[in-house]
Amino acid sequence: MQIAILLFDRFTALDAVGPYQTLNPLPDSETVFVAEQAGPVTDDSGSLTLTARKSLSEVDRPDIVVVPGGPDVPVGNEALLDWLRRVDATSTWTTSVCTGSLMLAAAGLLDGRPATTHWLYRDVLGGYGAKPTGRRVVSDGKYVTAAGVSAGIDMGLALAGRIAGDEHAQCVQLMIEYDPEPPYDAGAPEKAPAALVEMMRGQFAAPA
Amino acid sequence: MQIAILLFDRFTALDAVGPYQTLNPLPDSETVFVAEQAGPVTDDSGSLTLTARKSLSEVDRPDIVVVPGGPDVPVGNEALLDWLRRVDATSTWTTSVCTGSLMLAAAGLLDGRPATTHWLYRDVLGGYGAKPTGRRVVSDGKYVTAAGVSAGIDMGLALAGRIAGDEHAQCVQLMIEYDPEPPYDAGAPEKAPAALVEMMRGQFAAPA
Repeated sequence: MQIAILLFDRFTALDAVGPYQTLNPLPDSETVFVAEQAGPVTDDSGSLTLTARKSLSEVDRPDIVVVPGGPDVPVGNEALLDWLRRVDATSTWTTSVCTGSLMLAAAGLLDGRPATTHWLYRDVLGGYGAKPTGRRVVSDGKYVTAAGVSAGIDMGLALAGRIAGDEHAQCVQLMIEYDPEPPYDAGAPEKAPAALVEMMRGQFAAPA
Repeated sequence: MQIAILLFDRFTALDAVGPYQTLNPLPDSETVFVAEQAGPVTDDSGSLTLTARKSLSEVDRPDIVVVPGGPDVPVGNEALLDWLRRVDATSTWTTSVCTGSLMLAAAGLLDGRPATTHWLYRDVLGGYGAKPTGRRVVSDGKYVTAAGVSAGIDMGLALAGRIAGDEHAQCVQLMIEYDPEPPYDAGAPEKAPAALVEMMRGQFAAPA
């Protein structure tokens, strides 16, 4: 089983690494980080660089496709969108984290489907033809989308359970000691102080 | 403020990226990934490669030191231990995730201090002179240690709050939409099925 995680300039690091850490232990699997060109790809803060081992043309039949997000996902990059359409034709699962769902939607893969994304981008996702929800992980057939950044951990674990069974997923959860104790309860717009939510909405107005 | 995240061969990816994603937004800060030699460093699965931008000798006064773990942390690598002792002399915070605390302890920095680590390695941590606890995040003066892998997210958020205030940390939590919904409740040895815990204890007997 091949898991392909797409990288592009200014991706968000945890969007990619959360699913990686939870899906990579799948039995008889290999994970490949893939980008338009093989080589180093730098994240949205400019401080973290991950290596794409393969270029798009070298990865043509992954079983699982994972698309991370970022503050300005390349929804206009036809090479990436073409690749997504191509690999989706034979994938078993096509997934995203955060604004990665905008890429799937821009590729036409989420038309009319319930999906999720980073909370700041729900309307944008709707604009691309998906049906945005506020849920943390949304499955619709083989399409599994996760909300912002850290939601990729929950998505990866849930998908690992569906593929390899509950016991496998529980092993992974125990190995990464995923028994969260957030020191604050501000992880969703419905829970965070209203002033913070408004400030962020102002700061991150609709992207291009 | 400089945040230095140490990399070494076979580190665990999320150990490094959890604190990165939560500490990197600190105001007026820069994060640098550092390793014995600058360049690519590959994780414990062999599939993920992060770039260390600087070598140890180029990073001599970080304000925050973060040491990730891995299944076989290089507790015998004197160059790394010397660097840890050297930067600890002037750091404001010296932190670890997972078995990263074994590195701090091997460097002599946790003697007699309460600390935590991956649940499979609590006894090993005690053998290096720290006082292991089962808590998820342990603070003792400027030393902050986190339990296994995913606990680095909680550690990073808690530390961000102590450094830059609750509102900043809540902003970060909201931005990464950290409102966890693990699909299973098996993230700690006290919660996971006993058979899984025993199986893992057998599989990961005391490391070298």
